[in-house]
Amino acid sequence: MQVPAYAAPSEGAPLAPTTIERRELGANDVLIDIQWAGICHSDIHTVRGEWGPQPYPVVPGHEIVGVVEAVGSDVTRHAVGDRVGVGCMVNSCGDCDNCRSGDEQFCLNGAVMTYAAQDRDGTTTHGGYSSHVVVDADFVLSVPESLDPAGAAPLLCAGVTTYVPLKRWGAGPGTRVAVVGLGGLGHMAVKIAAAMGAEVTVLSQSLKKQEDGLRLGATHYHATSDPSTFQDLRGRFDLIVNTVSADLDVNAYLSLLTVDGTMVNVGVAPHPMEVKGGVLSARRSLAGSMIGGIAVTQEMLDFCGEHGITSEVEVIGADRINEAYDRVVDSDVRYRFVIDASTIG
Amino acid sequence: MQVPAYAAPSEGAPLAPTTIERRELGANDVLIDIQWAGICHSDIHTVRGEWGPQPYPVVPGHEIVGVVEAVGSDVTRHAVGDRVGVGCMVNSCGDCDNCRSGDEQFCLNGAVMTYAAQDRDGTTTHGGYSSHVVVDADFVLSVPESLDPAGAAPLLCAGVTTYVPLKRWGAGPGTRVAVVGLGGLGHMAVKIAAAMGAEVTVLSQSLKKQEDGLRLGATHYHATSDPSTFQDLRGRFDLIVNTVSADLDVNAYLSLLTVDGTMVNVGVAPHPMEVKGGVLSARRSLAGSMIGGIAVTQEMLDFCGEHGITSEVEVIGADRINEAYDRVVDSDVRYRFVIDASTIG
Repeated sequence: MQVPAYAAPSEGAPLAPTTIERRELGANDVLIDIQWAGICHSDIHTVRGEWGPQPYPVVPGHEIVGVVEAVGSDVTRHAVGDRVGVGCMVNSCGDCDNCRSGDEQFCLNGAVMTYAAQDRDGTTTHGGYSSHVVVDADFVLSVPESLDPAGAAPLLCAGVTTYVPLKRWGAGPGTRVAVVGLGGLGHMAVKIAAAMGAEVTVLSQSLKKQEDGLRLGATHYHATSDPSTFQDLRGRFDLIVNTVSADLDVNAYLSLLTVDGTMVNVGVAPHPMEVKGGVLSARRSLAGSMIGGIAVTQEMLDFCGEHGITSEVEVIGADRINEAYDRVVDSDVRYRFVIDASTIG
Repeated sequence: MQVPAYAAPSEGAPLAPTTIERRELGANDVLIDIQWAGICHSDIHTVRGEWGPQPYPVVPGHEIVGVVEAVGSDVTRHAVGDRVGVGCMVNSCGDCDNCRSGDEQFCLNGAVMTYAAQDRDGTTTHGGYSSHVVVDADFVLSVPESLDPAGAAPLLCAGVTTYVPLKRWGAGPGTRVAVVGLGGLGHMAVKIAAAMGAEVTVLSQSLKKQEDGLRLGATHYHATSDPSTFQDLRGRFDLIVNTVSADLDVNAYLSLLTVDGTMVNVGVAPHPMEVKGGVLSARRSLAGSMIGGIAVTQEMLDFCGEHGITSEVEVIGADRINEAYDRVVDSDVRYRFVIDASTIG
């Protein structure tokens, strides 16, 4: 099955329209008519070769929302006409300890990522910047009909990336959560943490987006460029979700935690973090987190459906993908670009 | 009240017999006839000036077991003749968030350590290398009569230091716990983790103490000098309790954690740890822990009483303190020196 798509033909080259092959519908497959595809910063890192060599042409996109167009003979969970989504993964072994405990992203035999990866049948995966995709039904999520589907697309990556650490480290009523960075990930963390009942503080380089932060659910907003922030907020937070992938003064942030508090990085900074042992002594933890398994992704979508949570998006036609990439790199988007997939083919 | 003691008269000088002043018994005070005093590596760091300038003469000792000789008029919790203990702290404000939540060691107004610290009345505290000590009743612990009192002394520091992270991070049936280093702290961690029901592995530089480790409760023992250890045990442990205060390859150890696993340092290494963000991505945590509050110290003592847990000790007379210090620095003790306080005065 030949379908239209936007692909990066080679490292660093602009994305351009092309045609790709999707596999025949297998017994456990779902054919999805893609409607919306979010642009994640990792799409840009990948196609620009910043995360190592890639199997070009690369069709990015792992924040996919669409409608089921056909299902294989064994599929019972999804039906033609259902609104569904696909996130960062499309397959895993299903049999290792991590898959069995619902962390398919940590599959010990290697999770198959949604694009630029080798699928278990040997073919290369292609992502959501396309009109259609064929995905194993176990990796297809149900997207609540109550949500705006364009705004729901980024939930598949940015949503689950922030939902998982908030849940794992107990954000909820009576807890104080800081979100570092108010971008694509950060604005989702603020909305979700607030919906969980936590008191949310944004720690951002400047106060430029303060009004947005408060509107999205934060009750406090501080500039990290102001040194008094780190004095005033010492020992304050039960949980810090750091959505910034740049190097930062990790000891300064750890000092903002209460006894038993945790700082979680949902991205990876370029250099190792130089953690002073003494700053952890009050049973503080420095942790990481990476997306989430399929079951918790569905749980997050249901939670967002219940609480009316979507991403703040700027919808674009496919011909503006390259321009959008430059603007993401410049942090010039509030807060996520989503491609209208009807403009692709 | 003048009492005999052993003190370091100045930085780096050997400890020698002396006489010190203990305060008059206050209404909430307990006068303890000291019987046993453990030697902790931090005694040595302190008297040798390795942790900064000290108010010499310094009388070390924060692993104290003795018998109540007198109590102040308001004391109800302890009675003359009771076997009691004193650990690392003898006072705190009692009023801040951390004191109120039972973490007096993190008192926001400064916990008063058992020796070489300024007490809340302005005097300098003196530790357990002495015949008697006067301590606020709220900081006096009950030591189970069923335990050998010499072996119980190190519980007051080494015991609680390892009990707290094991409890906090869920050591128990079905969990796999690694203990890094089999010294004064490590051997307590092995005993306590095994008593909690965890499967315990010792990670030690060599296999020299393997027989001891297995006898103390470990079921596996690996040499960290053997690179295959880090290959074979990848992703294996729910919890790693690192009792070694030297610099080590933290990323290699973090790689031994399962998804959601935690590595806790109970000491502080000389240099910052260079933590690679990617190694934490599987929701792994790097944490710290420092002794424990009074309530959890009592809980630990009761737990040890129930399970018959004491430290493995080598009892010495006070005239051998300086020799013992050199042997502790050389790791030449299995596993804790305890001073027979009857030899002090």
